This record gives sequence, structure tokens and C-alpha cells, in this order.
Amino acid sequence: MSITGNMLIGQYAVHGTERTFRAIDPATNEKIAPDFGAGGTKEVDQACNLAQQAFDIYRETTLEQRAQFLEEIANNILAIGPELITRASQESGLPAARLEGERGRTVGQLRLFAKVVRDGQWLTATLDSALPERAPPRSDLRLRKIPLGPVAVFGASNFPLAFSVGGGDTAAAFAAGCPVVVKAHNAHPGTSELVGKAIQKAVASCNLPEGVFSLLFGDGNQLGQALVSHPAIKAVGFTGSRQGGLALMRLAAQRREPIPVYAEMSSINPMFLLPDVLTARAAQMGAAFIDSLTMGVGQFCTNPGLVIALEGEPLSQFKQAAATALQTKAAGTMLTPGIHAAYVAGVERLVAIAGVTLLAQGQIAQAPCAAQAALFATDAATFLASEQLEDEVFGPCSLIVACRNEEEMRAVAEHLSGQLTATLHLNPVDHVLAKKLLPTLERKAGRILVNGYPTGVEVSHAMVHGGPFPATSDSRGTSVGATAIDRFLRPVCYQDLPADLLPQALQDDNPLTLWRLRDGELVKA
Amino acid sequence: MSITGNMLIGQYAVHGTERTFRAIDPATNEKIAPDFGAGGTKEVDQACNLAQQAFDIYRETTLEQRAQFLEEIANNILAIGPELITRASQESGLPAARLEGERGRTVGQLRLFAKVVRDGQWLTATLDSALPERAPPRSDLRLRKIPLGPVAVFGASNFPLAFSVGGGDTAAAFAAGCPVVVKAHNAHPGTSELVGKAIQKAVASCNLPEGVFSLLFGDGNQLGQALVSHPAIKAVGFTGSRQGGLALMRLAAQRREPIPVYAEMSSINPMFLLPDVLTARAAQMGAAFIDSLTMGVGQFCTNPGLVIALEGEPLSQFKQAAATALQTKAAGTMLTPGIHAAYVAGVERLVAIAGVTLLAQGQIAQAPCAAQAALFATDAATFLASEQLEDEVFGPCSLIVACRNEEEMRAVAEHLSGQLTATLHLNPVDHVLAKKLLPTLERKAGRILVNGYPTGVEVSHAMVHGGPFPATSDSRGTSVGATAIDRFLRPVCYQDLPADLLPQALQDDNPLTLWRLRDGELVKA
Repeated sequence: MSITGNMLIGQYAVHGTERTFRAIDPATNEKIAPDFGAGGTKEVDQACNLAQQAFDIYRETTLEQRAQFLEEIANNILAIGPELITRASQESGLPAARLEGERGRTVGQLRLFAKVVRDGQWLTATLDSALPERAPPRSDLRLRKIPLGPVAVFGASNFPLAFSVGGGDTAAAFAAGCPVVVKAHNAHPGTSELVGKAIQKAVASCNLPEGVFSLLFGDGNQLGQALVSHPAIKAVGFTGSRQGGLALMRLAAQRREPIPVYAEMSSINPMFLLPDVLTARAAQMGAAFIDSLTMGVGQFCTNPGLVIALEGEPLSQFKQAAATALQTKAAGTMLTPGIHAAYVAGVERLVAIAGVTLLAQGQIAQAPCAAQAALFATDAATFLASEQLEDEVFGPCSLIVACRNEEEMRAVAEHLSGQLTATLHLNPVDHVLAKKLLPTLERKAGRILVNGYPTGVEVSHAMVHGGPFPATSDSRGTSVGATAIDRFLRPVCYQDLPADLLPQALQDDNPLTLWRLRDGELVKA
Repeated sequence: MSITGNMLIGQYAVHGTERTFRAIDPATNEKIAPDFGAGGTKEVDQACNLAQQAFDIYRETTLEQRAQFLEEIANNILAIGPELITRASQESGLPAARLEGERGRTVGQLRLFAKVVRDGQWLTATLDSALPERAPPRSDLRLRKIPLGPVAVFGASNFPLAFSVGGGDTAAAFAAGCPVVVKAHNAHPGTSELVGKAIQKAVASCNLPEGVFSLLFGDGNQLGQALVSHPAIKAVGFTGSRQGGLALMRLAAQRREPIPVYAEMSSINPMFLLPDVLTARAAQMGAAFIDSLTMGVGQFCTNPGLVIALEGEPLSQFKQAAATALQTKAAGTMLTPGIHAAYVAGVERLVAIAGVTLLAQGQIAQAPCAAQAALFATDAATFLASEQLEDEVFGPCSLIVACRNEEEMRAVAEHLSGQLTATLHLNPVDHVLAKKLLPTLERKAGRILVNGYPTGVEVSHAMVHGGPFPATSDSRGTSVGATAIDRFLRPVCYQDLPADLLPQALQDDNPLTLWRLRDGELVKA
């Protein structure tokens, strides 16, 4: 498949005329052909109007049709073959093996949502029988969830496949019955076009209205704002920086009709090393921590950017093991020159803070966008007194906070703002302290791990990739896992509808064989 | 029980010193003893800090404890006896019979939430088994929902019991595990104090931390803003004017940590009279419509403020029957002097709009806050060209829109902004047209009724009292019915937690006997 630089508006390919740009290979800082044409408000308007026109038809496709559409997208993405991996690797600096894994995750995600759609539990079908004899009589009431409307999705830089054009937000919105307009991330436009065509083709072969999907190129501040401000758009999915997420939240709140924004923004993912396990395994844990920290050049939303432990000999051993492990780590190429520059600035900012020590660094960076990993240390008093130390430095950088006692450790936990994850490393003896920390961590994080590393985010039913602000804009949702679909739904109640006007999900004989709440009891009969 | 004019902060009674005010009897415009003391930021701070302190304890009460607390509140409200009805009637102008019904609804609501809490489905318990053999291995993942945190509830003027201190928002927040700080509506402070004491007593007798509930008096623009801005508050429940709701939305979005606002604001509840049923039953429908319109002096969020039908003889008959019925309707006392003044101004605004005809009025108002009902008529072209005609006039006022044909009727439906309800009156012959209107109405409303009137809002599992903006601030929720609890919850995932650290809802042997999603299948075993 050749990359054309065109946007995809419904079934059309449109070359944007606002300006021309190329992807940059971060390994060389050189531009990659071809030219991409950025669009403007005209193309936003076209794509959004098509999405609006498609909505009523798409949202009433059968569960089977919608599931097949998701599976067709998965198949089409696989059918692109090695070109997708090559291009994505060139545009992101990520190695092929990692991108092959990410493609598997992307395809698996689409297939999981196909299963979720077929199961139909997301419809939340609920039936309350009429009670004509009651005073006053009760009407027949039936509830199902329906999709919100067209969704704007912003591709993420750090997952060019799994959180981008055909990624988690798109899959969840499609599953819910929402048309999607994607704003491609400028760092990987070629990858975006390839995946976009795979979706466009699935729309056509599944005989869906063309407006179900469009892909736009352009500037975040211009095209992105126009997209979020468009009246047809009813929700936003975003993974990226806090600054970007906050801007979208403000825009969405200022609309004539405010809309939900699901922005996954920033997290430093605290890891608490409890005393008994630290004493027992300081050296192993130090090395394992560095492996997690530097994996993928630290470019994960769930990267462990903060380690909290009691001061003393075991922590010294942990630090030493971590420092030793870090010094062997090669500098990896970051995703974009901008991300690299922000990383360098973030590390410099930490170096300058009084009370913070640079413990160790990885190997020196030679290539243009290569990042030298960095490990810092401080004490709880310094951490508690500083707001800066909670800011995420996106990349292979972490801070170890030494606490004088358990009370200080609990104070650090309570001081934290919202996180995607919080991790406890513990032995059975540590459970007493863990029980004291858990209520605080539940209030702070979307996912709590024990004796693991937060960087792997499973795509399953029980996963939560979310959490209180500022980790995300809306703690009520998750952007990974089956329940990500719930973000794009709202309930509608039908009162006394004649049988032939009722949606299938709510008909008496349960033609979709759904689990339904009937007069307060879950039944499938 | 004597009314003291005190606020309730935890287990304390505190007389506010910001200013003194009294309730007003809208039937006489006279002030009612005693004096109430309005609080300020100091009391907001005390109540919110207590709520925060109570949160971790209250949210981990057992389901049975929490259900008993809700039932205890219900019993305590009933135990107040006739004094509650007398005082509420005096403060609201609502007749005793209506308030007795509303008390029954309030108590029923608390009991329904007790049942909901015991069922535990709101926990959304979800378990994904570990897959240690898989490459990469999958961790053990378990999800439950936890409460958001302390909730600020604003009492509504039009339901001094069912949507006020111990009303739907409070019951749903308590059920979810959230402490509640109520700002009483200034129109019924005595009623608020009586119900507040009933809750305060239940907190004590159930041995809950005192911060689970506080009740504050004060000005919306001062105390209300301080409450919504307080860092301990994690969500807001509000029923009232669009202006009030929009102000809370802005405040919540501007916080350092933005929080969800569930504001139920305004709706004109369109009723579509389809041709066949209108031809068959114009006269009966005209009279029945007026009964619904004037019930409770039209002071329901779901009052039918807009009627849409095809022009012609049947519509003329409907109008005539409605006009005749309206002329006999006595002017009823409205809730407050302010609401009455707004109603009079709203009717005057409609009178002044070109193309809008005053069809009929109810009996002339004599008493201070009595409202003369008003029925207006216009044509679809005028309606579609005007934005003002969609503004809610809170009270017994409605507008009939005559359409030239079905296309114009569908255009009116498409033109509408978000509504709490939309109603279709139809006969079997009308189903063809109904099927064309339904997709539009689903996009516009939270509840769709057939051959009924929207003013009765059942408290049950399938009810939705919500809808797209501007009917509410967040179409994803409902403020009536069992699923209102979902508004105050967020998911947390537990990864590889040892058995003794897992919450009960997620333990292997399912000690709470919950329906749980285990590896994608709903099971109770």
C-alpha cells in the first residue's frame, strides 16, 4: 500500500491544503517522504457532518454487524503486513519487535470489543413491569444504553498503533455505536494513513455509511480545537500530555453544549517498597525496577517514576543495585524530537532542585533523540515541600524518596495527586502496613498492583487504565479494557412503548438473549 | 421536634452568623419563624473536612450496615410525623396531600437504595484469572467500583422532600459510600432542618463517623460556591435552574481538580400528537393535557411545555378543548416569590413574541404568588426561527406548535435541544411516523413515553431522569431510579493482591454472593 499523504474523509482521500509536513525519523532527525497535507476547518466540518449523518444508521446496526466490522478492521490491519511495522518503526524510533507486539495488542483489542459487542451487556437492558393495580399505577419502563454520538479521537505519540487511529479509544467508540473522527498524531502520519485505510476499507466492505470513520491531519491548536468544538462531536478521547488534555477539557467545557472529555494525561506511578520485602530482596528489586523504568525508553504512561521506601541499609542496597543496573543501560531513541527535548529539560529541572541528588545515569546519549536514563533521590521532607517533584518527566527518569518512618511514608501517599497506578512491594509481614496504605492508594489511583511493575497494561474485562485527576480528566472511565465502552454510552428509558416500537434489546422475548435486569433480578430467560 | 434555625455540622448544631433569614410563606408572602443563621466559608470548611475524615471509614461499611443506615433515615423521616408536612406546606405552598405523597416517595427512594446496596451489583465486581502459562503471563486482575468521595448536594425548591436534604441525590450518594454535605434551599429551611436532624440521628444510631452528613444554610453565590470549590468535595448533585446549574458547572471545571457536576436544569418536554390519534381523540387529549400541565402549578421538571402536531381540524379541536379546560383552572400558589416573578416574566416574554398567540389563560391570580396558567400557540416556521421559544417557562405554561406536514414535524424534533422527556401520542396507524421520529427523540431525550404524560417520574430500576444538555449537565447519569448510584462511583483494578488484602467483593469465595463477571461470564457461584 502506498502512503499518499492524504486525509480520509468518509470514503474519499483528500489532500489538505493548509500546510505541508513530513514525518521525522527520530533516530536521524531526518524527514521521511511523502508530504502530508494538513487540513483545516473545512475538512473538520465535512468529516463531522458525515459522522453525524452516519450516526443514526450506524448505532442501529445489529450487534453481529458491529462485531464483524471490528473484526474486519483487525484483519485489515494485519493484512497491511510488514509495511506497517517498518513505517511505524521509522516514524517512532520504536523497535520492530515492540511494534509487532503492539500490533497484536491492537488487533486483540478490536477482537475483544467484538466479543463485548456480541455479549451486549453494555446495553444494560433493564425492564420494570407495569403495575396497573398499584395506586398510582406504574407504567412499563425499559432502559437501554445508547451511544453518545460522533467521537473525536486524538492519536497518541507513544502507541502509534494501540492508542492511535485504530487503537483503544476508536475501538471502544465503534463498539458503543459511535462514528469516529480521528486527528492523527503528527509524529506518525504514515502509520496513521495505513491504519486509516484499513478502517476505511472495513467501512465499505461492511456496507456501513461512510461517515462512520474519517482521519484528519493538522495542527492540534487549530484543527484539533475545531474538531473538539464542532457541534456534531459528542465526546473526546485523548492520550497525551497534561497540557494538551487540559486544553481539550477547557474547550469542551466552553462549548455551547459541553461534552465529556476522556483525557489520559500524566502519572508518576508511585511504587512503595515495604520494609520486610526490601530487607529480603533489595538487590534483586533494584535491578528489576531499572528494567521496568528503562523499557521502551520509559515512554509509558505507567512508567514507575517514583519509589518510596524507609531509609536505612536495605534502601541503600536497593539504590546501589539500581544505580549499577542503570549505568549499563544504553540510551534509547525517543519518539520525537519534542519529547526528547522535554525529557532533557525535565532532567535538568530535577538536577537543579535543592535536596534532590542525581544518583546515577544510563549510558551517554549519542544519537539525535537518544535519552540518557536518570535516577534521582531525595527525602520525604523535601518531596512533601515541593510541588515540582510530582511533575511527570516523560521518559526513563525516576525519583527515590526516603522516609524516616511509616508515618512519613503514609504522608507521602496522602500527598500524592491522582495516578494511573500505585504499586506495593511486600512480604506477608508487610500486610499490616499495606492495609494502612491501601485506603489512601484507592483514593489516588485507578489500579493497585502488588509485587509487580505497572508498565504492562492488560486488555481485559477487569483492567482499569484511568484514575483521579490529573492522571485523567474523568476518573469514572478507563481507556483500556472492556469497560472502556461505557464512556461513550448514556441511558434512555422507554415508557409504555408498543411492542413494535421497542428496540430489540428490550423486547419481551429477549431476542438478543441478553442478561437483563427484570424487576430487579438478573435473568437471561 | 422544634425548629432551631441551626445548621448541622456532623453531630453539632451551629447557628450561622453570616446573616439571618426566615422562610417565606408564598401563600401570604409573610415570613415564618424562627430565624435561620446562614453560614460561610468557615462552616463549609468544617463540614467538608469532617466529610473527608469520614470517607475512608464510611465507604468500607458493610453493605448491610449501609442499607440499614438508609432504612434508618427513612424511618426517622416518617417519625417526624405531621410537623414535617405542615412545615413543608407552609414553606412551599404545596398542599398536604401532595407532600404526603412526596414523603412516601422519599422514604421509598431510601428503601430502594437500601435494596440496591444489599444487591451489590453497583460494585461491578469483575475478575480476570491469572494466565501464568501465557506469553507474556497475565496477572490476576479484579475490579470493583468505589465511591468518588464527599458529595455536595443542593436542595431543590420544587421537591422539598424528594429532591432536597434527604432526597434522591443524597440517598444515591450515601448508597455509593459518599459522605454528603447539603446546602439547603433557602425556600424551605425548616423542612430541611427537620429532615437533616432525622439523618443526623441515623448517623449517630448507626455508629457512623459524624462527617457522613452535614447540612448548611447560606447563599448560593457565596456558601454554594465555597462548597463546590472545596478540595474535599468530589462531585455535585443539583436540581434547579439552568443559570444555577451552569454556574456550578463552570466552578467545578475551574477547580484545581475538576469534579463531575450532575445538574438537572431545564426541559420543555415536547409532546408529539400524531395524526391518527389526534383525529380520534382530540377533545379528550386536550383536556388531559391541561390536567398534566397545571398539576402542582406546573412546577415539575417534566412539565409538558411544548406540544407539536399537524395543523388542521383535529388540532383546532385539541386547542379548543385545551383552552376550555384551562379557563376553569384556578391559579395555584407557586413555590417562592422569585419563582412566581420569573413565571410572570416568562409569560410576558412569550406574549411579546411575533407569531405567538395567547390561546387561553387559567383563572386570574389573586393571592401573592398565585400563577395564572397560560397556553400559547404558534406555527413551526416561527418556532424553528426562534431560539427564545425553547426556553423553559417554569410553571403552568405551554406552547402548541402547528406543523404543515410530517417533514416540518420532524424538523421541529431535530431542532430541539436536550430534554428530560419526549412523548409520542399515537394509534397503531401512527407507528410509521413514530418510527421516523424515534431516532431523533432518542438523541434528544433521556426518557421516551407513549400515550402518557411525563409528569410522573417512577423511582425504579429502569427510570432515567436525565438527558442531553441543557436538560442536564451530564447525559450519562440519571437523578432518579436505582442507577443514580452509578454517578458517584469509579472503577479500581487490583492486580495480584494477596487474598487477605482483597476487598470482600472480590475475594475468591464470593462472600457477598454477588453476581460477578468472571473471565467474561456472569456468575454467582
